[in-house]
Amino acid sequence: MENRDEMRGKRIDCLDKGFVRLVDFMGDDDAIVQAARVSYGKGTKSVRADRELIRYLMRHRHTSPFEMVEFKFHVKLPIFVARQWIRHRTANVNEYSGRYSEMKDEFYMPDLEQIRTQNQVNRQGRSDTRLPVEEAEKIKDTLDKTQKKLYEEYQIFLGQDIARELARINLPLSTYTEWYWKIDLHNLLHFIKLRLDEHAQYEIRVYANKMGELIKPIVPVTYEAFEDYLLESLNFSKKELSILKRMMKAELPEDSLLEEFGIKGLEASEFNDKLNLLLSSQ
Amino acid sequence: MENRDEMRGKRIDCLDKGFVRLVDFMGDDDAIVQAARVSYGKGTKSVRADRELIRYLMRHRHTSPFEMVEFKFHVKLPIFVARQWIRHRTANVNEYSGRYSEMKDEFYMPDLEQIRTQNQVNRQGRSDTRLPVEEAEKIKDTLDKTQKKLYEEYQIFLGQDIARELARINLPLSTYTEWYWKIDLHNLLHFIKLRLDEHAQYEIRVYANKMGELIKPIVPVTYEAFEDYLLESLNFSKKELSILKRMMKAELPEDSLLEEFGIKGLEASEFNDKLNLLLSSQ
Amino acid sequence: MENRDEMRGKRIDCLDKGFVRLVDFMGDDDAIVQAARVSYGKGTKSVRADRELIRYLMRHRHTSPFEMVEFKFHVKLPIFVARQWIRHRTANVNEYSGRYSEMKDEFYMPDLEQIRTQNQVNRQGRSDTRLPVEEAEKIKDTLDKTQKKLYEEYQIFLGQDIARELARINLPLSTYTEWYWKIDLHNLLHFIKLRLDEHAQYEIRVYANKMGELIKPIVPVTYEAFEDYLLESLNFSKKELSILKRMMKAELPEDSLLEEFGIKGLEASEFNDKLNLLLSSQ
Amino acid sequence: MENRDEMRGKRIDCLDKGFVRLVDFMGDDDAIVQAARVSYGKGTKSVRADRELIRYLMRHRHTSPFEMVEFKFHVKLPIFVARQWIRHRTANVNEYSGRYSEMKDEFYMPDLEQIRTQNQVNRQGRSDTRLPVEEAEKIKDTLDKTQKKLYEEYQIFLGQDIARELARINLPLSTYTEWYWKIDLHNLLHFIKLRLDEHAQYEIRVYANKMGELIKPIVPVTYEAFEDYLLESLNFSKKELSILKRMMKAELPEDSLLEEFGIKGLEASEFNDKLNLLLSSQ
Repeated sequence: MENRDEMRGKRIDCLDKGFVRLVDFMGDDDAIVQAARVSYGKGTKSVRADRELIRYLMRHRHTSPFEMVEFKFHVKLPIFVARQWIRHRTANVNEYSGRYSEMKDEFYMPDLEQIRTQNQVNRQGRSDTRLPVEEAEKIKDTLDKTQKKLYEEYQIFLGQDIARELARINLPLSTYTEWYWKIDLHNLLHFIKLRLDEHAQYEIRVYANKMGELIKPIVPVTYEAFEDYLLESLNFSKKELSILKRMMKAELPEDSLLEEFGIKGLEASEFNDKLNLLLSSQ
Repeated sequence: MENRDEMRGKRIDCLDKGFVRLVDFMGDDDAIVQAARVSYGKGTKSVRADRELIRYLMRHRHTSPFEMVEFKFHVKLPIFVARQWIRHRTANVNEYSGRYSEMKDEFYMPDLEQIRTQNQVNRQGRSDTRLPVEEAEKIKDTLDKTQKKLYEEYQIFLGQDIARELARINLPLSTYTEWYWKIDLHNLLHFIKLRLDEHAQYEIRVYANKMGELIKPIVPVTYEAFEDYLLESLNFSKKELSILKRMMKAELPEDSLLEEFGIKGLEASEFNDKLNLLLSSQ
Repeated sequence: MENRDEMRGKRIDCLDKGFVRLVDFMGDDDAIVQAARVSYGKGTKSVRADRELIRYLMRHRHTSPFEMVEFKFHVKLPIFVARQWIRHRTANVNEYSGRYSEMKDEFYMPDLEQIRTQNQVNRQGRSDTRLPVEEAEKIKDTLDKTQKKLYEEYQIFLGQDIARELARINLPLSTYTEWYWKIDLHNLLHFIKLRLDEHAQYEIRVYANKMGELIKPIVPVTYEAFEDYLLESLNFSKKELSILKRMMKAELPEDSLLEEFGIKGLEASEFNDKLNLLLSSQ
Repeated sequence: MENRDEMRGKRIDCLDKGFVRLVDFMGDDDAIVQAARVSYGKGTKSVRADRELIRYLMRHRHTSPFEMVEFKFHVKLPIFVARQWIRHRTANVNEYSGRYSEMKDEFYMPDLEQIRTQNQVNRQGRSDTRLPVEEAEKIKDTLDKTQKKLYEEYQIFLGQDIARELARINLPLSTYTEWYWKIDLHNLLHFIKLRLDEHAQYEIRVYANKMGELIKPIVPVTYEAFEDYLLESLNFSKKELSILKRMMKAELPEDSLLEEFGIKGLEASEFNDKLNLLLSSQ
């Protein structure tokens, strides 16, 4: 298991030229428990162990204790990824400025296997079908030549002393930018959940995945609870519950089955409540 | 069915002396569709009917089109309810000020049937057990006498020209306050979901419930989708899914069963994906 | 003077192909007063006229009543402008999606007079020096040819059925996008102030300016107060105040001079307090 | 000068029974510079020294680099102060819960010298006039007796097993509560500025003041810039500038005067721009 403090400064490469680096963080699993204990006061201090408390908070979407932990990342990413990323408003950002500074000669080039056809079901994404290798290689070649040409034009404009803020307007969305991005743990987990979703664009999923890896050693109990109760959970609508009911054998599971899966105490009673609701669906 | 515009200005009483009044609103179901169409452009305009689009957005937690509708309420509520309410940060507030103005002689007095014992399972709430009527009446009497006495002391302080901001410090949490509260539909639904929860305090549930009534005629399709996909849905954790699997008959439901419940097309295929995930749980 | 309700739906062109259109709004100057009166209660109702109240609120940065008014715009803008704009986090956004839909053949082309050299003092902006006309025309020609070529490549990629989310990565930052953008009046005025600043890029200043025009007829008193107390005010640092003091004649202005400029009552007394502070600077 | 890391865990008492304790923080003056450098890239790296950069950012209200530093406090405060405090929405909070836990027997009792009459000019605050000592002592006596009686009634209610969430509704606004409060430096400085204002209630000013003391050793350069450019600056409206102009001697100050006050380079040129604007007021 990796050491908490060794994570500070750790950098993981993403895509062909990008990265995500954990610059700094404040707090860990203990900080979450500590903040939650303020809310509960002496009332519950000895009742629930720390791990159980964190899992309880996650299960019940008591989000505020998770907001007490903060992470700061340095990220290098293509502009079209940055445009999706910035839609998450509950974060702080300092981005490299193409008005102050010269943009660098770095552009995103997809791997051959990522050059795929339009997805006809999920209308926003790419399908599982790769283009024929030769065709894909020609596409990469076109992308590359164009990126080179656009950077040359940019350089010529700068050579003519055109203002940087204007010279850059024809640079492509594949241009890499950089930013510092700071966010609390609750909002980061929300970001990771949304951006790990199969509907998210592949290129941003790569970053969400690596950020998960960077924080897991710092908040291991929280991350496990996040996987159990959010990431790998399923939500069934009112109507879906009615159908589920028809698919089920009549009887409730025995307690021993719940224990086999580590569900006991308050969580077991909550699960039984849900099962009763499910079995009483119309 | 109530008329959309007739809702403007409508007021519903809450608790013994409070109310929630819908001062104004901007947008309705159509405004949500209109905003969503901007995102999807010509790509999907004719494919999905408006109702299906709204349900798709709700099911997939595409929250931003719901943020395009705004509601403004005038609320009168006890201070202890206001303190829970204000924790929702994504709203705009103008509250009556006890520094500028004299507090009024109005305090919350619970109904007899709400005077109940501490809940031992849900450690934050009250149980279903009412106190004996005589005891409860004595408690109401104590509450009432104390409220009267506190207001008298407040009046004496004001009579001595003590600054209002100081004279009010011993007024009780049961004192009624008022505010204007403005919020977008997405965040309002989130508020309603959290505050209709059985773990929420009874007194704030009353307000959440009445706000739901006020907005339902304005965004009927959205509210129905909210009930189907959020309010009356159930979420099962990774481990719970494993147990559910053991409780289920082996085979998947026939399409006709899904149709019976109005699940078809994309939604049916999504449901089948979830069932397959469920049935492949370890 | 233009009518308030006629502004709904009004559209103003911006740059060569963009626009800003006021889709809807909720509230006006009266709504601000109404919300503020809730805070002040009976304490001050008859004391200050509505206009004076709004000016008092603006002068004292009492921002919450201004948050009670909401505006929704439809904007068409180049992506590099959108990237600056989106940094304002206190707004709701629905943007045209290049993943769902095909991007249109529209790119920003600066006017000849906007093709200027790098500003050497304000390191982020352009100077007042235009490039020689012939040179500027050649630059426009280059920009135009490149934009055409990039769109052709994009079309070829789509023709090969490459996923839209990938086909668009070499489209330039000058590509036009569209969005619905909803914001409250306080945050809109903040946006306008920042984006009318001479340090802001010319292209976004154009939009800020037009949005000011669109809302002025709806909140005329507020907008005038905004100009007087924020937009055309000046802030002097502690040290600058010390120097200002040395530059001033010793005596305070007579009341008649203040009245000449319409400063009286509470505002006059506040101004005198500031002058006394200024004249006592070390 | 106090050591940065020694501040972690430091607690300062506030009012009669409250405190503010700095639980943790992330970043310092260097972290601000580091984030700002990302924006400016190589363009300005060597030009401006760190101190000048921070002062430039503060002067120009470039707030995002200051958002890269985070502070977490543990605060004990009366509920009426908490109600003002919570209006700042850009922070994370975990408060002691009177539903989960028993409220403690601790209430705010103002000092004799704080028992003052209503301010007739600043209609929300107290005046400089203290009540006669005997009268003030009698008021304290009344407050104290009432607080004791209210806590007794609360204890009796709990003894009858009334739900805690109900038993507490007549506890007074002077009751102490506790919370963890986490906020970034930019928003904390905004909080401090607003809550140090003479219009803020004395009791919250005490906390703002102590939080300033706690963070000053951690971000000394930023705090000094905050005092120079925000806290001790003055803002003059358009009309006030017209009057200031009449009060001024005609000529601009010599450069040597500016240098005497440490204003040089870019800042001097910006100041001269403001003076020119001032002297050209109508």
